[in-house]
Amino acid sequence: MTIFKNLVHKNVCRTAQFWPQPKTLSLGTVGDVMASSPLTIAPSMKVYEAVERVRQVGFSSPQMNTCYVVDENGLLLGLVTVRDLILARGGQLIQSVMNAPSVTLAPGDSQKAAAQFMEQFDLLELPVVEDERLVGVITADDAMSILKDEATEDMEHMAAMAPSEKPYLQASVWSIYRSRIVWLLVLMLSATITGAIISHFEAALAAQVALTAFIPMLMDTGGNCGSQSSVTVIRGLSLGEIRFSDWFQVVWKEFQVSLLCGFTLAAVTYLRVAIFNHQDPVVALVVAISLVVTIVSSKLIGCLLPIAARKAGMDPAVMASPLITTVVDATALITYFQVACWLLPM
Amino acid sequence: MTIFKNLVHKNVCRTAQFWPQPKTLSLGTVGDVMASSPLTIAPSMKVYEAVERVRQVGFSSPQMNTCYVVDENGLLLGLVTVRDLILARGGQLIQSVMNAPSVTLAPGDSQKAAAQFMEQFDLLELPVVEDERLVGVITADDAMSILKDEATEDMEHMAAMAPSEKPYLQASVWSIYRSRIVWLLVLMLSATITGAIISHFEAALAAQVALTAFIPMLMDTGGNCGSQSSVTVIRGLSLGEIRFSDWFQVVWKEFQVSLLCGFTLAAVTYLRVAIFNHQDPVVALVVAISLVVTIVSSKLIGCLLPIAARKAGMDPAVMASPLITTVVDATALITYFQVACWLLPM
Repeated sequence: MTIFKNLVHKNVCRTAQFWPQPKTLSLGTVGDVMASSPLTIAPSMKVYEAVERVRQVGFSSPQMNTCYVVDENGLLLGLVTVRDLILARGGQLIQSVMNAPSVTLAPGDSQKAAAQFMEQFDLLELPVVEDERLVGVITADDAMSILKDEATEDMEHMAAMAPSEKPYLQASVWSIYRSRIVWLLVLMLSATITGAIISHFEAALAAQVALTAFIPMLMDTGGNCGSQSSVTVIRGLSLGEIRFSDWFQVVWKEFQVSLLCGFTLAAVTYLRVAIFNHQDPVVALVVAISLVVTIVSSKLIGCLLPIAARKAGMDPAVMASPLITTVVDATALITYFQVACWLLPM
Repeated sequence: MTIFKNLVHKNVCRTAQFWPQPKTLSLGTVGDVMASSPLTIAPSMKVYEAVERVRQVGFSSPQMNTCYVVDENGLLLGLVTVRDLILARGGQLIQSVMNAPSVTLAPGDSQKAAAQFMEQFDLLELPVVEDERLVGVITADDAMSILKDEATEDMEHMAAMAPSEKPYLQASVWSIYRSRIVWLLVLMLSATITGAIISHFEAALAAQVALTAFIPMLMDTGGNCGSQSSVTVIRGLSLGEIRFSDWFQVVWKEFQVSLLCGFTLAAVTYLRVAIFNHQDPVVALVVAISLVVTIVSSKLIGCLLPIAARKAGMDPAVMASPLITTVVDATALITYFQVACWLLPM
């Protein structure tokens, strides 16, 4: 992707630093989707000759509205939209009415980044250039499809699935099974860790069976807090609204939010357990303290894992999202049992 | 939204039946986002007069390429793109070169549905009509932004958050807290149910403390299976790929997939628990049976809740996604303890 001076302002530079996107994306490159036969004209043509060429050759798709000005070697010199042709006088030279291309794509650029760029700057058509030679065009209808597919893919990754190739109703049971079973197996086996943690504290649990009742609540709340943070950060990274250098700002913000959420939920839980359920106030205190620690740590894990995945060149949605539950569960259980061992008679 | 005969084929009818979208969407109507000053021409104009009008008046945005043909009362008669103008001869009448509009939107149509329609049929510009009078235009740049925002909103709902109004880095800690705390509280309090279930089976757990170690694995696997199904169905509903009348096909497919997933994971778990961990084979059998029932029920709950939410006129992502964990957890725990009471000495 090349951005020329006339479009280089703050926002563009910000987006441009995101190239290249991680290679784990299954959505391919601009070269895979571009239309390869843009309408070309010569700079020495007069406007009426260009109009004649549009009439004779035509555009290869109804979504194209730009004539690309190339020299005899195919080097891209400028562009003239149909609107420019209509506004110009017939006798003018194309090179006097053409505009320099403000942005060009390379065939190897990621489709996702190109579509996001077109969305951000309201662009309906971008030329694809290789060694300064025009090789294709991306139009807004491509961008719309890419934006849709890319969001679907991110959602599938967040829900621990391999991306689907067909719409759901057309997909076979076997292909749906294959897209889901691998992550289910990985996550089930990684939950062995939480089982081992509980087994480790079996004596403590046998002494205080009441503790068991709060395990699902702690794990679920940790999981919900973690996925709120991770989905926010994954989407922000995906849209280019968050980049790696923002990591400290993200962590600091999540830390403050997690303290607010943690103390709110802990206060509600303490009141519920100690006052409404008439349970031992020390048990209520153990649950409340564990809740604060779990919420703070799960929000920090939820925001740090996707940023770390991006830094390592992986797709944050693929690597970070499904693993967060396991890490958060383990943290929640260890905190809970450790606090219980400190405060309760075992 | 009105779809005229020349575009009525199977796929369009399918999409069209989705109007109107549920009202819980915070993304607004077409009227909120349309450009209100399309370029209009009269049917009695000659092509060269229309070109002259384009030169003098111009389009109100760079993304517009269509002149709308209206009569003296503003009724929309047809449309002529800039390309049509260039291809026509100057002396032709506009009414002889114009095309009938194939699709028109109403100001009250949902933005989301309009954008999905434009994406599906590669449309770059659609007229908005009220009482047959032209009132505005939606262009592809609007559609791209809507597709992006709508996917972000769905992801936020799936992760139990209220939609954000600002990009993350600009949002205040307080506004992020407010967008997250309500669902966290609701879900934490609903986890009281799982706590009550565990308390109910406290005697059984005290007799067989080893059972506790498998609770997180069962809950997590159920949650993962449920969210795979719910995210698939929510995205399918959102894109119009699945509609209410497909419910039986969806349930039947999920049932088959869940049996395949259930028996795979149960077999792996039985081998791990009984052979590698040398635990009581009856305990391993209890866990394996519970796993199959949990996976089947969580996949069915995961696909049925979003469909039911859509049928009730609610946004599936808002209502169904966050609640699935709680329902799945409760089902998993009841199954587990019930099977344990049948098969193990208590």
